Amino acid sequence: MLTDYYQVSMAYIYWKQGRQDEAACFELFFRKNPFNGEFTIFAGLDEALRFVANFRFTDADIVYLRKMLPEAEEGFFEWARHLDCRGLKIYAIREGTVVFPVEPLMRVHGPLAVAQLLETTLLNLVNYASLVCTNAARYRLTAGGDKKLFEFGTRRAQGPDGSLSASRYAYVGGFDGTSNVLAGMKLGLPVDGTHSHAFVQSYGGLDDLPASTTVNGVDIKGAALRWRATLGYDDDRLHDGELAAFVSYAISFPKKFVALVDTYSTLETGLKNFACVALALWEAGFQARGIRIDSGDLAYLSREARALFDGLAKRYPERASCLATVAITASNDINENVLASLRDQDHAIDAFGIGTHLVTCHAEPALGGVYKLVEINDRPTIKLSNDVSKTTIPCAKAPYRLISKNNLMLLDLLVPARYAPPEVNERVLCRHPFDHEKRVYVVPSVVIALHQLVFDGDADGQLARPSLEDIKRRVKKQLTLVREDILRRSNPTPYKVAVTPELFTFFLDIRQRNEPIVELT
Amino acid sequence: MLTDYYQVSMAYIYWKQGRQDEAACFELFFRKNPFNGEFTIFAGLDEALRFVANFRFTDADIVYLRKMLPEAEEGFFEWARHLDCRGLKIYAIREGTVVFPVEPLMRVHGPLAVAQLLETTLLNLVNYASLVCTNAARYRLTAGGDKKLFEFGTRRAQGPDGSLSASRYAYVGGFDGTSNVLAGMKLGLPVDGTHSHAFVQSYGGLDDLPASTTVNGVDIKGAALRWRATLGYDDDRLHDGELAAFVSYAISFPKKFVALVDTYSTLETGLKNFACVALALWEAGFQARGIRIDSGDLAYLSREARALFDGLAKRYPERASCLATVAITASNDINENVLASLRDQDHAIDAFGIGTHLVTCHAEPALGGVYKLVEINDRPTIKLSNDVSKTTIPCAKAPYRLISKNNLMLLDLLVPARYAPPEVNERVLCRHPFDHEKRVYVVPSVVIALHQLVFDGDADGQLARPSLEDIKRRVKKQLTLVREDILRRSNPTPYKVAVTPELFTFFLDIRQRNEPIVELT
Repeated sequence: MLTDYYQVSMAYIYWKQGRQDEAACFELFFRKNPFNGEFTIFAGLDEALRFVANFRFTDADIVYLRKMLPEAEEGFFEWARHLDCRGLKIYAIREGTVVFPVEPLMRVHGPLAVAQLLETTLLNLVNYASLVCTNAARYRLTAGGDKKLFEFGTRRAQGPDGSLSASRYAYVGGFDGTSNVLAGMKLGLPVDGTHSHAFVQSYGGLDDLPASTTVNGVDIKGAALRWRATLGYDDDRLHDGELAAFVSYAISFPKKFVALVDTYSTLETGLKNFACVALALWEAGFQARGIRIDSGDLAYLSREARALFDGLAKRYPERASCLATVAITASNDINENVLASLRDQDHAIDAFGIGTHLVTCHAEPALGGVYKLVEINDRPTIKLSNDVSKTTIPCAKAPYRLISKNNLMLLDLLVPARYAPPEVNERVLCRHPFDHEKRVYVVPSVVIALHQLVFDGDADGQLARPSLEDIKRRVKKQLTLVREDILRRSNPTPYKVAVTPELFTFFLDIRQRNEPIVELT
Repeated sequence: MLTDYYQVSMAYIYWKQGRQDEAACFELFFRKNPFNGEFTIFAGLDEALRFVANFRFTDADIVYLRKMLPEAEEGFFEWARHLDCRGLKIYAIREGTVVFPVEPLMRVHGPLAVAQLLETTLLNLVNYASLVCTNAARYRLTAGGDKKLFEFGTRRAQGPDGSLSASRYAYVGGFDGTSNVLAGMKLGLPVDGTHSHAFVQSYGGLDDLPASTTVNGVDIKGAALRWRATLGYDDDRLHDGELAAFVSYAISFPKKFVALVDTYSTLETGLKNFACVALALWEAGFQARGIRIDSGDLAYLSREARALFDGLAKRYPERASCLATVAITASNDINENVLASLRDQDHAIDAFGIGTHLVTCHAEPALGGVYKLVEINDRPTIKLSNDVSKTTIPCAKAPYRLISKNNLMLLDLLVPARYAPPEVNERVLCRHPFDHEKRVYVVPSVVIALHQLVFDGDADGQLARPSLEDIKRRVKKQLTLVREDILRRSNPTPYKVAVTPELFTFFLDIRQRNEPIVELT
């Protein structure tokens, strides 16, 4: 029922005219890469196919549809009640593949009415998934492979389910985990986190600590206070409530002590209190895991933190070496530009917690995926537009990726699905789909058929169920195959998606046949 | 379980130290109005309270939490299994009220651990709801009260649930309906729509029509073709497949014939085919409802459409008067700027279908709502920041709206919740929360207490369940109460949110007590 009203009214018309089972082919594609980039990662296929496999109207749905279309004949609802995706075949690019504008990510063959009814939900499931996955991949490319990236965006997502999708596809795109417990439970994603400012604020002073703060025979509070004195920190500037909060965390989770250090002042109190507790915990045999900085100049503060920890490790080599491995996490409104700017500065951050900008895709919050009819009863169809690049390319098409002998991706070629694929080591003429001038000869060393049959409604339904880990690995691998100039942040090179000469000519012809010549009067 | 990892780890620490039931007060607020505006509409409260009322961990949740926190003691899980929102009291501003930065939208009093555990979900439910509701209200203000606005964004929302939230809160914010069938079914929203380009494309020509196209004894196809001839349209430029599609729609839904007119060319074929079918349908006794234009210069095309229809109505006053009332809907990537620009041009559009920009809140895709601890065991708490405007104002606070004798909203005043409210006709000194210089005396004629008790965990739980219609009406009413200079699109005036002098002094004092003075060395 997650569909647009017009899908149902169109289904009714098709049914009423007995056209519901005519052979249609729809293609799902987008026209522009997001984030001013030149690549997109295709995601959401598995969820889309699961939806297709389970597609049906329940009795309750039918009750509502009857109310919504009071003029419709009863036979329509009978028909709808028994509708499913038999007769449907879906070809698609593998989820996690790097894809480009115009090429069909999914190609749906089947009865006109049901193939049309799927439109809204397929777009809903693919658009946001691909967008956030691409966003995550861009963050990963910008941060570098050695940094940890965590998705912290649950509170800013579009409702509960939006947050689950965000966690899922950020992980697939290259994140290491999420703070979202539901995503951990439902999807098995690694979950992690520290604590909030409220936690630190909730401790007014050392009196708020329990009577015993002993871990492995070491009184952590006492030891931390000793370290304060030893390090010459015992002045008014250190916040006692903050120290109490850190001690609390350490004694509850000695194996994974982490501290948010900026509630009052990162440099003046947060880092120092953390160091004292970390040193105390080390006496009890545990290694502090890390700190999180959530405000201020992240590059500067991270360097200061590292300098403090390294300085102490040098000054007390036997007793403070525990500080050398403390991980520094930064959060606070980080986006791709901030990551890039930090990378260009000197910083000492090991991990990033990224929320709002990742899950809302702040830099470009929608991928304009569309779902267009390209053939009906084997007749190619076209949708015209004043803007030729928004015109739909007719015919059911199969995309092929042509690879050079140096293993470079040369271009993707769209071939009418009923034609033979391009052959290895044969010269192929490839034409720009819209621009008469742009043509190129290619001799591919490898030809990768991007489309596979992924759903067969008359046989086993959904034909493969790759795990999230499989898809995540594919994304990572794919990004190593794409040329760096296509992936780069500034002025990336557009990747070519071409059509065969036959398709080009046919496209031109059908455009001219359908497009009235305007009379200027 | 839709929560952040750290909420659970903090709950564990509180539980372990026996602090779980300490009396906490959290406030939910935001710091900046979205969309470069100076107002926000508070939405999502009802869903948030329903979540609170039903808050508990299931056995399956506990199994996962045990896995997630292997070091936690068993007693914690026992406790968590029986946790609910008893002991919790929530005060809040009514849903649908116009609100401003810094003021607490919700104030949650209750046991520390459970009040903390609610944070992520409350933010998730309020942030996006308020954002999209505010966005919708801005579109409504820009379009004017006499235009119809429909939400068409299902395919671009953050997953299935995101689209339902979008439909819901766009409606509350001032939209007339949605294309989302699920929102119609679940929420009772009006659903509407036309048809897609694919529908038009699926008709190759008049042969694709059924043998009979008769409605009320009138052969619609025949009559439409007669009109073509009468109007001098019988040339090659009119697309027969398009005519067939329109006839199909008209005979299936004679009472609500609508047509998407830009599949091939709005001016050359779409409008003309529509006019012929509308005139044919009129002969059968039915009034065509409208057209939709989804590309091109919407102002120009709508004027041309209106001119065509009006011209025909004038030429054939008895037979074409049906065209005078045809509604013109425009869609195609409309946002607030496009609406404003159209308003400033001469256009003839009656209704707008708005998708991507509305549901993704493209212009600003996140409302930065936060949830901060302001008191613990009656001790006010503070979170400092280098940026003073990001510092949290301590104390449980109640907001009051002070109204002048001319019925103007003067300002909102935050008063410590345990203090008496400002009195009518008494002079009150109101101070800017952060700026020492800004003070103003106000003599209110009306004082509106913005906070009401909305949830009582020890009594009836959620205390009111306003309907969507109630909230929608409140939004509409509220927007008439706010000064135009606050609502306007360009250079709006910021509305004042002030604090009492006592709160100001206390805030300053607690800041100074908690903030270490930096030593520059």
